[in-house]
Amino acid sequence: MLREEYGVDPVETFAPVPLEQVRMPESALDTDDLRALRGTDSDVLLDTEERASHSGGKSYPDLYRRRTGDCENAPDAVVCPRSDEAIADILAICVERDLAVVPYGGGTSVVGGLEPLRGGKRALLSLDLRHLSSMSDLDEANRTATFGAGIRGPAIEAALRGHKLTLGHYPQSHQQASLGGYVATRSAGQASTGYGRSDQLVQRVRVITPRGPIDLGSDVPASAAGPKLIDVLIGSEGTLGVISEVTMHVHAAPKTKKYAAWAFDSFASGARAIQAATHECGKSQLPAVCRLSDAEETRIGLVMSGGLKARAVSKYLNVRGAAKPALGIFIWEGDDDVTNLAKKKVEKVFAAHGGIRLGGTAAKSWEHGRFSSPYLRDGLMGRGIFVETLETAASWSRLQATYLTIQSAIEEALGSPSSVQCHISHVYDAGASLYFTFLARAEEDPIAQWRRVKTAASEAIVDAGATITHHHAVGADHAPYLSHEIGDLGLDVLRSIKATLDPSGVLNPGKLMRASDDA
Amino acid sequence: MLREEYGVDPVETFAPVPLEQVRMPESALDTDDLRALRGTDSDVLLDTEERASHSGGKSYPDLYRRRTGDCENAPDAVVCPRSDEAIADILAICVERDLAVVPYGGGTSVVGGLEPLRGGKRALLSLDLRHLSSMSDLDEANRTATFGAGIRGPAIEAALRGHKLTLGHYPQSHQQASLGGYVATRSAGQASTGYGRSDQLVQRVRVITPRGPIDLGSDVPASAAGPKLIDVLIGSEGTLGVISEVTMHVHAAPKTKKYAAWAFDSFASGARAIQAATHECGKSQLPAVCRLSDAEETRIGLVMSGGLKARAVSKYLNVRGAAKPALGIFIWEGDDDVTNLAKKKVEKVFAAHGGIRLGGTAAKSWEHGRFSSPYLRDGLMGRGIFVETLETAASWSRLQATYLTIQSAIEEALGSPSSVQCHISHVYDAGASLYFTFLARAEEDPIAQWRRVKTAASEAIVDAGATITHHHAVGADHAPYLSHEIGDLGLDVLRSIKATLDPSGVLNPGKLMRASDDA
Ligand SMILES: Cc1cc2nc3c(=O)[nH]c(=O)nc-3n(C[C@H](O)[C@H](O)[C@H](O)COP(=O)(O)OP(=O)(O)OC[C@H]3O[C@@H](n4cnc5c(N)ncnc54)[C@H](O)[C@@H]3O)c2cc1C
Ligand SMILES: Cc1cc2nc3c(=O)[nH]c(=O)nc-3n(C[C@H](O)[C@H](O)[C@H](O)COP(=O)(O)OP(=O)(O)OC[C@H]3O[C@@H](n4cnc5c(N)ncnc54)[C@H](O)[C@@H]3O)c2cc1C
Repeated sequence: MLREEYGVDPVETFAPVPLEQVRMPESALDTDDLRALRGTDSDVLLDTEERASHSGGKSYPDLYRRRTGDCENAPDAVVCPRSDEAIADILAICVERDLAVVPYGGGTSVVGGLEPLRGGKRALLSLDLRHLSSMSDLDEANRTATFGAGIRGPAIEAALRGHKLTLGHYPQSHQQASLGGYVATRSAGQASTGYGRSDQLVQRVRVITPRGPIDLGSDVPASAAGPKLIDVLIGSEGTLGVISEVTMHVHAAPKTKKYAAWAFDSFASGARAIQAATHECGKSQLPAVCRLSDAEETRIGLVMSGGLKARAVSKYLNVRGAAKPALGIFIWEGDDDVTNLAKKKVEKVFAAHGGIRLGGTAAKSWEHGRFSSPYLRDGLMGRGIFVETLETAASWSRLQATYLTIQSAIEEALGSPSSVQCHISHVYDAGASLYFTFLARAEEDPIAQWRRVKTAASEAIVDAGATITHHHAVGADHAPYLSHEIGDLGLDVLRSIKATLDPSGVLNPGKLMRASDDA
Repeated sequence: MLREEYGVDPVETFAPVPLEQVRMPESALDTDDLRALRGTDSDVLLDTEERASHSGGKSYPDLYRRRTGDCENAPDAVVCPRSDEAIADILAICVERDLAVVPYGGGTSVVGGLEPLRGGKRALLSLDLRHLSSMSDLDEANRTATFGAGIRGPAIEAALRGHKLTLGHYPQSHQQASLGGYVATRSAGQASTGYGRSDQLVQRVRVITPRGPIDLGSDVPASAAGPKLIDVLIGSEGTLGVISEVTMHVHAAPKTKKYAAWAFDSFASGARAIQAATHECGKSQLPAVCRLSDAEETRIGLVMSGGLKARAVSKYLNVRGAAKPALGIFIWEGDDDVTNLAKKKVEKVFAAHGGIRLGGTAAKSWEHGRFSSPYLRDGLMGRGIFVETLETAASWSRLQATYLTIQSAIEEALGSPSSVQCHISHVYDAGASLYFTFLARAEEDPIAQWRRVKTAASEAIVDAGATITHHHAVGADHAPYLSHEIGDLGLDVLRSIKATLDPSGVLNPGKLMRASDDA
C-alpha cells in the first residue's frame, strides 16, 4: 500500500541516529547550580539519554529532530523531585539562579508543550514527575481517588481495578501520559463522551508555584464561593506551577459493554445521525465511545485490516448504496438494562437516518488496537512518510463546513500524493470534535513541510471559528492563536495570573501564552 | 402553630413603613454626574421607590431594614442601560467621576450581594439590567439559546416553551431572579441534580468591564485552549464586569415526569439511601429533583399541610417504625422508558435501605407550592418571627457530622423557642448540599440576632471543612470566609484579575473579595 499510494519503499530507509552520535551541547549548569539542585530531595540527571529523551514531546518535528540526532537545545539537566518540598526547592533555585523549567509528565505532548525554550534564562531544567506516582488516597464513599501527578494511565487503572472502579480516561496516549499531564492539558479520552473530559473529572488539585503551594478544590462536591478558580490551574500547561497531586472522580467499573458499528453513506449523514441521537435521546443515552470516521479514514481502515472480511464489508456496503461509507464505532458501558435501553434508543435513530447496521466486531477490533496505532507512526517515518495529526471542535451547525475547510487546507498544503483522514471522537450537545490524520511523502525538509501544513490548518481553523485545540492543548505550536480564543483582554487576564504566581517567569516560557513583548 | 411554638401573635404586629416615611438621604450625584449619565442610552431614576427597592436584596437584614424604613445607604441613582454600549458608557463615567456601581439583576441576593457599599467612592449607582431581557438567538441545531442578562426565569421558559425546549433551571427564586444573576452567582436550581447547575449550562458569556468588553466561550462545544477562562467570569458577582449577554445550553422539554415520595426513619438513613442510589445506579439515573428533608422539616411540613391526610401519613409512618421520619421528594424527567427504568432502579435501592414508599402525591404538592414558600417569610416577619436560611455542601463521608455541627451551632446561637430545619436538595457523586431554614421569636435587635447566628453558622461550616456556600454565593456576608475556600494565594489571583479588569475598583466594592487592605 505504501508503495502504491505514496511511491515509497516499504523498508526502513531513514533509521534513528544512535545515541552516541546525537548532537548535544554540554550542560550549561555550573557547579553552584548543581550543588544547589543536589541539595534538594531529587535525582539530578545529566546523561545524554535522559537529556535527549526530555528534549521534546511526540509531535512530528519532535520525533523528526530526535531521529536525526538534533538535541542542540536539550535541557541542561533532568531533575526528578521526590516530594512537594523538593519541587518547591527546585523552583526557588530556578528563581534565584535564573533557570527556566519545563514540567514533564509522560512526555507525550504533540503541540510543542515540552519544547526546551529558555525564554532568556541562563539554562533549562526538565522537571520530571516520575517519582510522584502512587495513589495516596481512595475515598470509596465519595468516589474520589488521589494520585501523585506523575502516575501513568495503566497504573491508575491498576490501582482502581481491585475496587471495581475506573477513571474511565483513555486518551490514545494512555500507556505513557501522566495524570498531571492530563490535567495540565485538559486532555479528553476516547470514552470521554461517556465519562467526561479529564478537566471535568478533577475534584482537587495541588500546584506548587514559585510563590508557594496552592490547593484548590477539596472534598466538597460543589460550591458557589466565587469563580471556579481551580479552572485557572487546570489547563495551565506548566506555566503557572507544577501540579503535584490530583484528586479525581472515579466511576463504578462498567458491568457490561455493548458494541455496535454502523455505516453511513457519508460523513455528513453519519454526523447528522449522531446529532439527532444526542438531541432526541439525550446525551446520557450516548455510548461512552462515540466515533465516526470519514470516507477516507474508513477506506484506509478497511485496506489496513485487509483480508476477506473487510472486502466483504466493502462489497456489502456498496450494494447497499454506500460506495464511500463512513464507519461509526459505538461502545456503551454500564449496567445491563441501562445500556440495552440506551443502545436500542440510539440505534433506532441511526436506522431512521439511513445507517446500515454492521454488528459489533468492528467496534471490538477497534478497541483491541486502539493504543497501537501511534506506534505505526514511527514505522511510517522510517519509511519516508510524513505523518501528523491535529484536532479541533465545532458546533453542529458549522461542523461540515469546518471539516471541509480544514480538510482542503491540509490537502493543499501537503502536496500530493497524500491522504487526509478525519473522525469525530467526542460528542456534545452543542457539537463534536474533529480529528485529522494526514500522510504524504516526506519532502527534502520535512520540518518546513510540517510548518507549512500546520500554519495552513491553524489558519483554516481560526477562520472557520472553530477552536485551535479540542484536546491536544496549546503548547508552543498553538500559542500564536490563543488570542483568537480568549481575546486580548483574556490574554491580559492570563498574564496577570502568571505574574502573580510566577513573577520571575521561570515556568515553561513560550508555552500557552507568549510573553507580552513577543506577542 | 405560631402561638403554640413561638408564643407570638398570629396577627401582623410589625407592618412595613410606608414609602413616604422611608429614611433616605438626597442623592449625592451632582448635576455634572447626572448630565453625563443622561447622555448614555439609559433610564436614570432618582425616585424614592426605585432607590429604596435597590437598597439591598432579600436576606433577613435586607428585608428587616426595608420594613423599618431604613434606606440610609440607598444608591444615589438607579440606571437602566438599553445596550452594551450604554453599560460601557456608564462604567466609563464611574471611573472618571469616582462612582461605585452595583450590578442589579433580579434583586434576590440573600448574601448581601446588593449591599449599597461605596468602597470610598463619592457616590453609588445601582445598574439594573431590566431592559436587556430578550432572547436574541435560539440555535436549535446546537441546543443553545442567547439571552439578555436581565431576563427573568419565567420569561426564559416562555421563550423556549414553543420550541419544546427548557433551560431546566428552577431556583426557588425563579420568578424574580435574572439569568445574569444566576451566572454571576453560580446559582443551582431545584432540578439541578438532573439538568446541572447554572454554571455548568453556560456556553458563552459577554461581560462589559471598565477595560472593555470580554467575550468568552463561543459556539464551539469544548476546547483545551488553556485554562477555562470563562470560569473566571462565571461567579464573579459583579466585581469584574457587568454580564450583558449569556448563551446557555437548553434541553428538550421532558416528555414525562414521574413523581415519588419516600420516608426514611432518619435523615442519616435517607442520605445513605440516596448516596447508595447515586453510586449503585449511576448519577444519570437520579431524579432531576432529589430532595430529602430532615425530621424537623418533615414535621413542620406535615403540620403546615394540616388536614386529615397529613395526620394519617404520620400515623402510618409511626406504625411502620418511623416516629421521626425524613421525607424524600423525587421527580424524574425525560422520556417514558428512560425515566421508568431509572425510577425502578433507584427505588429498588431506597427499598433495600429501609425506605417506606408513600406514592407521588407529596411530590406533586411540593412541586405545586415550590415558589410560594418565600412569600411566607414576609408574613412571618410581620408576626414577629425571625426567619432565615443558609446553605452549604459536604462530601458523603462528612455529611452527617457537618449537618449536626451546623444544626447545633444555629440552635445554640438562635435561643429558644426555635426550629432548625434542613434538607438535601442537590446530589453529586461526591456528596450533597445542605440547606437550613430556621425560625425563632425575633429579639429586640433582630439584626444583632441575625449576625450572631450567621457568624456561628459560618464558623461551624468553615470548621467542618464544608463550603461557605453551595449556591447562594459570597456577596458581602461570606466575603470574610473566602480565604478558607481558595487560600491567600487564591485570593491574590482573584485580586490580580480584578486589578486587570477593574483597575479603579468601581465594581461592587466589598463583595466577594475584600480589598487587600481591609482583609
Ligand atoms: C500517540 C498519542 C496519542 C494521543 N492521544 C491523545 C488523546 O486521545 N487525547 C488527548 O487529550 N491527548 C492525546 N495526546 C496528547 C497527550 O497525550 C496529552 O496532551 C496528555 O495529556 C499529555 O500528558 P503527558 O503526561 O504526556 O504530558 P507531557 O507531554 O509531559 O506535558 C504536556 C504539557 O503539560 C505540562 N505538564 C505535564 N505534567 C505537568 C505537571 N505535573 N504540572 C504542570 N505541568 C505539567 C508540560 O509542561 C507540557 O506543557 C496524544 C499524544 C500522543 C503522542
Ligand atoms: C426566596 C429566594 C429563594 C432563592 N432560592 C435560590 C435557589 O433555589 N438557588 C439559588 O442558587 N439561589 C437562590 N436564591 C438566591 C438568588 O436568587 C440567586 O443568587 C440568584 O442567582 C440571584 O439572581 P438575581 O438576578 O436576583 O441577582 P441579584 O440579586 O440582582 O444579584 C446577585 C449578585 O450578582 C450580581 N449581578 C446580578 N446581575 C449581574 C450581571 N448581569 N452582571 C454582573 N453581576 C450581576 C449582583 O451585583 C449581586 O452581587 C434565592 C433567593 C430568594 C430570595
